[in-house]
Amino acid sequence: MARTTGSHSDITGPRVRAAALKLFARGGYAAVSMRAIAAEVGVQAGALYNYTPDKQTLLFELMRDHLEALLCALPVPRGDALAQLEDFVAFHIRFHADRPDEVFIAYMELRNLDEENFAEVERLRRMYENRLENVLRAGVDSGDFAVKDTKIVTLAIIAMLTGVNTWFRESGRLSLDEVVGQYWDMVRKAVSAA
Amino acid sequence: MARTTGSHSDITGPRVRAAALKLFARGGYAAVSMRAIAAEVGVQAGALYNYTPDKQTLLFELMRDHLEALLCALPVPRGDALAQLEDFVAFHIRFHADRPDEVFIAYMELRNLDEENFAEVERLRRMYENRLENVLRAGVDSGDFAVKDTKIVTLAIIAMLTGVNTWFRESGRLSLDEVVGQYWDMVRKAVSAA
Repeated sequence: MARTTGSHSDITGPRVRAAALKLFARGGYAAVSMRAIAAEVGVQAGALYNYTPDKQTLLFELMRDHLEALLCALPVPRGDALAQLEDFVAFHIRFHADRPDEVFIAYMELRNLDEENFAEVERLRRMYENRLENVLRAGVDSGDFAVKDTKIVTLAIIAMLTGVNTWFRESGRLSLDEVVGQYWDMVRKAVSAA
Repeated sequence: MARTTGSHSDITGPRVRAAALKLFARGGYAAVSMRAIAAEVGVQAGALYNYTPDKQTLLFELMRDHLEALLCALPVPRGDALAQLEDFVAFHIRFHADRPDEVFIAYMELRNLDEENFAEVERLRRMYENRLENVLRAGVDSGDFAVKDTKIVTLAIIAMLTGVNTWFRESGRLSLDEVVGQYWDMVRKAVSAA
């Protein structure tokens, strides 16, 4: 992975990435040219290569940075497994609702990652999944949760929570607080010993 | 919407659609040309227009037919709300597991549909969601389910079940029967009056 550093990148780099994110989310990675990204930023196509070696690197860095930010933002564990699960549910919905383009790309453009980049993105995604799975395991051990297969339940919960992004609108009939509350109600019951 | 009919279409039409499905799923709609679809089928680019007026029509028909097939395949309601919910969960997972490319496209390429086509696809999708929501409402009315907002729970369940497609492999450690069983366990508890 080539890296781009220096004062120019510090200013234009984020604009290049924001432009790439917007265009990838709108048209799909394969349909977006470096020329189109340059036009969106307002620089010559050639100038783009001061900031990134290629389009693949742009895509990879967008996905990697999204997942790294997700991991860094995870709430510090507090309380028992039930409290930690509640924190995870609220965190996941809020973090993803704020970043619709990043989330869309992180799921949809996996097919366009080079093998090495795909492996790194998958590694980060598994780290995130493991955080939830550890909470579920702790709850099973303490007898608070009844879950047959913590891996399956991890993937099911994450898919359910991420799905909020496909329909939630700030202007809709429900606030994000209400959405979080209702999803927590479902997750709490789904893992319960009932 | 132009229609293509006739004996030629009866034979080559399905091959054109299969090629479009495969290429859209792999590279994304925007990146796939009619020329590339023709090459995949093994006909001249011009010949493609005997079977479809344009790429947008191909995309729309793939999504529409997928949703119509989904609606037609829905199990006939039997038993009480709990039995109907169990049938829905098993049906949804199995139907989608068999059609990964169609499912991927149906979610990912919504952004590339013309306004009128988008409205029709959304209408069909809502019909499907309504089938599940009606089961949930019946269960709430009978006191079997405790669900605050049947619409939210509908969307949450569908997202959770469709998520199976992102990780399930026939060759994996779990059979589809086991997966269905575990998801049913979660859904059953999530809507329970507990």
